[in-house]
Amino acid sequence: MAYALWYWPSIPGRGEFVRLALEAAGVAYRDMAREQGAEALVRDLEARSGIRPFAPPYLVDGDFAIAQVAHILAWLADRHGFGAGQLERDLELITLQLTISDMVAEVHAVHHPISAALYYEDQKDAARKAAEHFRSERMPKFLGYFEDALGANEGPFVLGHKWSHVDTSLFQLVEGLRYMFPQRMEALERGHPRLLVCHEAVGKLDGIAAYRASDRCIPFNEDGIFRHYPELDGS
Amino acid sequence: MAYALWYWPSIPGRGEFVRLALEAAGVAYRDMAREQGAEALVRDLEARSGIRPFAPPYLVDGDFAIAQVAHILAWLADRHGFGAGQLERDLELITLQLTISDMVAEVHAVHHPISAALYYEDQKDAARKAAEHFRSERMPKFLGYFEDALGANEGPFVLGHKWSHVDTSLFQLVEGLRYMFPQRMEALERGHPRLLVCHEAVGKLDGIAAYRASDRCIPFNEDGIFRHYPELDGS
Repeated sequence: MAYALWYWPSIPGRGEFVRLALEAAGVAYRDMAREQGAEALVRDLEARSGIRPFAPPYLVDGDFAIAQVAHILAWLADRHGFGAGQLERDLELITLQLTISDMVAEVHAVHHPISAALYYEDQKDAARKAAEHFRSERMPKFLGYFEDALGANEGPFVLGHKWSHVDTSLFQLVEGLRYMFPQRMEALERGHPRLLVCHEAVGKLDGIAAYRASDRCIPFNEDGIFRHYPELDGS
Repeated sequence: MAYALWYWPSIPGRGEFVRLALEAAGVAYRDMAREQGAEALVRDLEARSGIRPFAPPYLVDGDFAIAQVAHILAWLADRHGFGAGQLERDLELITLQLTISDMVAEVHAVHHPISAALYYEDQKDAARKAAEHFRSERMPKFLGYFEDALGANEGPFVLGHKWSHVDTSLFQLVEGLRYMFPQRMEALERGHPRLLVCHEAVGKLDGIAAYRASDRCIPFNEDGIFRHYPELDGS
C-alpha cells in the first residue's frame, strides 16, 4: 500500500524534503492534502491521539504515523535502501539530516523572528536585522559544514557514488536558499564547489528530473519556509 | 571504556538532556570540557574532519562521534535499554524527543530572537514580544502535546512503568521552564497533571536523585538555554 504523506498543500515547505527522497527512490505515496485540502489535514491531525505528530509533515503507513522530517527520512532510508546500510555511516547521515532541519528552522525564523503567528509585515524590522546576521554568519557556517561533509568521500554524493536522503535534502536546501537569497547565494556558491556538484547530480537523478517536470512539484512562494523578500537579501 | 561527552562546561544547556539519561541509566561517561575547559572543546571539535558534529553536545565512543541531542539519546537508548525495545514504539519516542528539541530551540530563540551572536541586551525589545507569544501560544501547545503523549499509557512515564529517554528530557524541560517562566508555569502546571507526575517520578529515580545531589549537576544561569529574565515572564 502506498504511504500517505500529510503536509500543507500550497507550499513545498518541509514536506518537500520527504517528497524528494520518495520521488528519487520511486516509492509510491499519496499526497493527501493535495488531494483533499488543508482542512482534511487539520482533521486528520486532530483525530490522532496519544503519541501523535506535533505538526506536519507526517507519513502514515497503515496504523503507524511518523513525524519530523529527519526522522521520517531515516526510517524510509532504512526501509528502501537509500541510506548507507552500515550503522555508523547511517548515524552520520542522520546527524547531517538533523543539521539540515536546524538550518531550515533558522531560515523560517529569519522572516518570522518574533512569532510564526504574526504576519511578516508586523515583524519586518526584526526580520531585516535577523537576515543580516543569518546571511553573514549562519549561511557560511552551515554551508561550509555541508561542504566539508561532502569531502568525506569522493562525490558527487555524501556517500560517494550512491545518493542518500542527505543529498536530496541538500539539493532542496540549495534550491530554497537560491530562491530566498539570490544575491547572497551568488556570492557564496563559488566557495562551495562540492555542494554545487551534489546539487547538480541530484537534479539529474531520473526520479528527481521526472518529478520536477511534473505538476506535483510546485514552486516556492511567500507562504512557505523559503520566501523571497528582496529586502532580506544582500551579497 | 566510558563515553566522552563534549559540551560547554558552564551551563546545563542541551548537554543536560544527555547527562540525565546517562545518569539515570548508570552509564559511565566523562564530561570532557568540565575536566579540560571550553578551549579543549573548541579544539576537539575543530580537529574533527569529514562528517563531524555541527555543534556541541556530542558523544564520542572510540573513533565514533554522534551529535544532536535526540539522535544521541536514541542511539544510547538502543544500546543501554532505556527505549521501548519495539521498533514502532521506539520511533514514537524519537518523534517526542525531536519535538522536545524543537521546543528547546524555540526557548533559546525567545531571548535571542534576532541572532544568537548578539547580546540579549541588544535584542531586548524583540525578546519581550517573542516571549509574549511564546508564553501565550507555544507553551500551552507544546505542554498540551506532551501531556497527551503521557496519556497513551498508564503513567507515570511515557511507556507506563518503565522510564525512557523522553521522560528524563521532559523532566529537564519542566525544570528549565520553571526557572525561566516561574509565573507562567505556575498558571499552566495545574492543567498538565501527567507531566507533573512524570517529573516527580523521574526526580525519584536513584540515578537522577544521586546526580542532582552531586556537584556534577550545576544550576541554570543566564548564559544558558533557559534564562530567568523577569521581564520575559508573566502569568
